[in-house]
Amino acid sequence: MDSASSMPESDELILEGIVTTQDAVGNLNIAPMGPRVDRRITRLVLRPFQSAVTYRNLKATAFGVFYITDDVELLARAAVGHLQQPELAAIEGFPCPRLADCCRWLAFRVQSLDDSSERTTIECRIAAQGEVRPFFGFNRAKHAVVEAAILATRIGILDGDEIRRELARLEIPVQKTAGLQERRAFEFLQEYINSRLSTSDL
Amino acid sequence: MDSASSMPESDELILEGIVTTQDAVGNLNIAPMGPRVDRRITRLVLRPFQSAVTYRNLKATAFGVFYITDDVELLARAAVGHLQQPELAAIEGFPCPRLADCCRWLAFRVQSLDDSSERTTIECRIAAQGEVRPFFGFNRAKHAVVEAAILATRIGILDGDEIRRELARLEIPVQKTAGLQERRAFEFLQEYINSRLSTSDL
Repeated sequence: MDSASSMPESDELILEGIVTTQDAVGNLNIAPMGPRVDRRITRLVLRPFQSAVTYRNLKATAFGVFYITDDVELLARAAVGHLQQPELAAIEGFPCPRLADCCRWLAFRVQSLDDSSERTTIECRIAAQGEVRPFFGFNRAKHAVVEAAILATRIGILDGDEIRRELARLEIPVQKTAGLQERRAFEFLQEYINSRLSTSDL
Repeated sequence: MDSASSMPESDELILEGIVTTQDAVGNLNIAPMGPRVDRRITRLVLRPFQSAVTYRNLKATAFGVFYITDDVELLARAAVGHLQQPELAAIEGFPCPRLADCCRWLAFRVQSLDDSSERTTIECRIAAQGEVRPFFGFNRAKHAVVEAAILATRIGILDGDEIRRELARLEIPVQKTAGLQERRAFEFLQEYINSRLSTSDL
């Protein structure tokens, strides 16, 4: 059941960011995720598939960290699993480290986990949080990268021509409004998507 | 001359926000604006048309305030000139007040103003700044409102059917990811655009 449809008048919305979790022996996983949150972000509802590492780790350890970031290169690379090991920082009194660079981090604990269906529902409470640097603000190119990263995760689900058309449309705001980071991130995703699509066309 | 094309390797990007200015007798003007900025936002390059109040005010007074905000209702209403008088706060040692609610405010002074062409180029230096509350982060519905607000300002420039098609496309992420503020802002712009388009169809 989707919390949006069950509570149409509640002020909840989707926040696109990053989640880090650890497995039982401490291996870090970094995944883009769009939890449903209340506007003040006191709780997160994550809905990973049972095939996702985030689901397995949260089931095993119950702890994770969510990040609000404007770093679209991080988001783009995390979306397709092409990340270098990032710099980490400890969170006092919390069992998981956090990414050193982000706008805000929100350390959370799983409160309930429903895995009766393939797509799980994991309710989390914020245990600690901090602000590292301010979010840049609205930039159409950053947003185009977020959309392109979502497209990249839908190869094999959406039609290839539809993905190509969307990607061509997203290139326009990138040309008009991007800085270097946004341009690099978009080109990285273009190359990734084009190479995956040309392979699947064979 | 566009600074993007003249300095392709510089890390400048477009930041969509709000500018407030005052005329010579202190009347406040609030306008959405997308200045070109460096990534650390130490300077702004505004490019208002000579018909814009922001241009006339900056030419007369040389002072203004730029805002980074995630309040898409404010952006939507400012884009079409349907704003109530907002709450203001004084900035110590600066001649203009600022909007009380925003994520960040950046008080600026005009450094150079080139109005040799219809679209002016106004270079501004940040004189003072402050953070009021953190920016929400990436939300696809907020971004759809930003795009819809840009569409609203292009009625009469873009083809009506193209505007309707874009608006229909933008409604999808609003349905999926909006909270109450984003939904109100999008519906406000839908009504505004539809009523303006049906008038111009007559």
